[in-house]
Amino acid sequence: MSKGAEMSADRTDPSIRHLLDSEEIRRLIADYAFHMDMNHPKELADLFVEDCEVIYGPGFGAKGRAEYAKTLEGIGTFFEATSHHVSNIVIDFVSDVEARSRTVVWAWHRYRKERPDGHLWGQYHDVFVRVNGRWLFKRRELRTTGVKDFHVKIMHPIGRS
Amino acid sequence: MSKGAEMSADRTDPSIRHLLDSEEIRRLIADYAFHMDMNHPKELADLFVEDCEVIYGPGFGAKGRAEYAKTLEGIGTFFEATSHHVSNIVIDFVSDVEARSRTVVWAWHRYRKERPDGHLWGQYHDVFVRVNGRWLFKRRELRTTGVKDFHVKIMHPIGRS
Amino acid sequence: MSKGAEMSADRTDPSIRHLLDSEEIRRLIADYAFHMDMNHPKELADLFVEDCEVIYGPGFGAKGRAEYAKTLEGIGTFFEATSHHVSNIVIDFVSDVEARSRTVVWAWHRYRKERPDGHLWGQYHDVFVRVNGRWLFKRRELRTTGVKDFHVKIMHPIGRS
Repeated sequence: MSKGAEMSADRTDPSIRHLLDSEEIRRLIADYAFHMDMNHPKELADLFVEDCEVIYGPGFGAKGRAEYAKTLEGIGTFFEATSHHVSNIVIDFVSDVEARSRTVVWAWHRYRKERPDGHLWGQYHDVFVRVNGRWLFKRRELRTTGVKDFHVKIMHPIGRS
Repeated sequence: MSKGAEMSADRTDPSIRHLLDSEEIRRLIADYAFHMDMNHPKELADLFVEDCEVIYGPGFGAKGRAEYAKTLEGIGTFFEATSHHVSNIVIDFVSDVEARSRTVVWAWHRYRKERPDGHLWGQYHDVFVRVNGRWLFKRRELRTTGVKDFHVKIMHPIGRS
Repeated sequence: MSKGAEMSADRTDPSIRHLLDSEEIRRLIADYAFHMDMNHPKELADLFVEDCEVIYGPGFGAKGRAEYAKTLEGIGTFFEATSHHVSNIVIDFVSDVEARSRTVVWAWHRYRKERPDGHLWGQYHDVFVRVNGRWLFKRRELRTTGVKDFHVKIMHPIGRS
């Protein structure tokens, strides 16, 4: 969304503002997947606020952007390729500068080591904040629906009844 | 979408109204997948109108919300986990209170029994109605593109040429 | 989107115009997947402008709609079924009549020959133009993240770092 679109959004009524914000948030979610699959650790970290929190599983996550950037260092050498498919995105606005969302993800992983491709089916539960006119991740939590041939064994469950 | 957004939508022109309605319908489609994967039969049935029709396959479906709720009783014990990924959503408005859509779905199923994960690739063909300001499923029909290791063998085909 | 919605869009400010255009472009991307999976070569070709360019891989693609239509002739007999899942769509507007986008795709293929299902994970990089009030593909390029049991072996890579 261009700067012009951003500015005109501020003049419009709340419903249109939410439509424009939702587009930007969906783009942020897509950009995360893109930079993960492209192995762009710097661009990934830049999608998060300084005091972010990332929770991938029990004992696996980060507090703050600097710590998060460190967790990304290994992805280039560990995976031959990954493909993160995000869909089923549902967004709720807490205020004009804070939103929450639930996203379904399927992440396909091809390892550099000789082993079968790893699959993860899960949900991202996110908190976004709008800083200087730009939506960023404040908190990202992965909950896992199931895995197959995946290198991580202990995950936060989705809490299926 | 908050109540305020809903009310302001009524004042706006038809194109913006359709944008807002499309967001709500996509959310409904995502909520169906969510409650299916979470094994929430009550919340699932509440996404449908009283006189709904659900068609999963030949001889497998329901007429009316009560009958539909019964078809959902087994999912908790039959599946260890499922992940429904919905995308490619195309929506057409028949009127301000009726819409139709086509959605692509991939449903991954992990069984409680010892057997390989089951996969279904398909299309949902849906009819929605807006009741008391809320979009609900009036009719949901699943057409199947293909399956792998799936427990259901006879499905309605997509009609590929 | 109805004709009425189209016309009212022209009166609105640029941000709303982009929202409406984005909906139409996402629909175009979904329609491509739909007509591919339905084996509708004529409807597929009609989604492209006359002087389009399609790049599926090195030495595999087409210049112009007529040449593109020819590449589609084999899909009906080669595949028993396919399912193209598009998500992570990010759209940028170059002008009111030109846009670019990046889309993630997972394409599942079931062959008529006795062989395992083929999988392709990739990215579409597209250019769209608006002709006579309708968005069409001007250029579609597939970059491949990875494949499994796929009949095509040489692809343009996504350029992972």
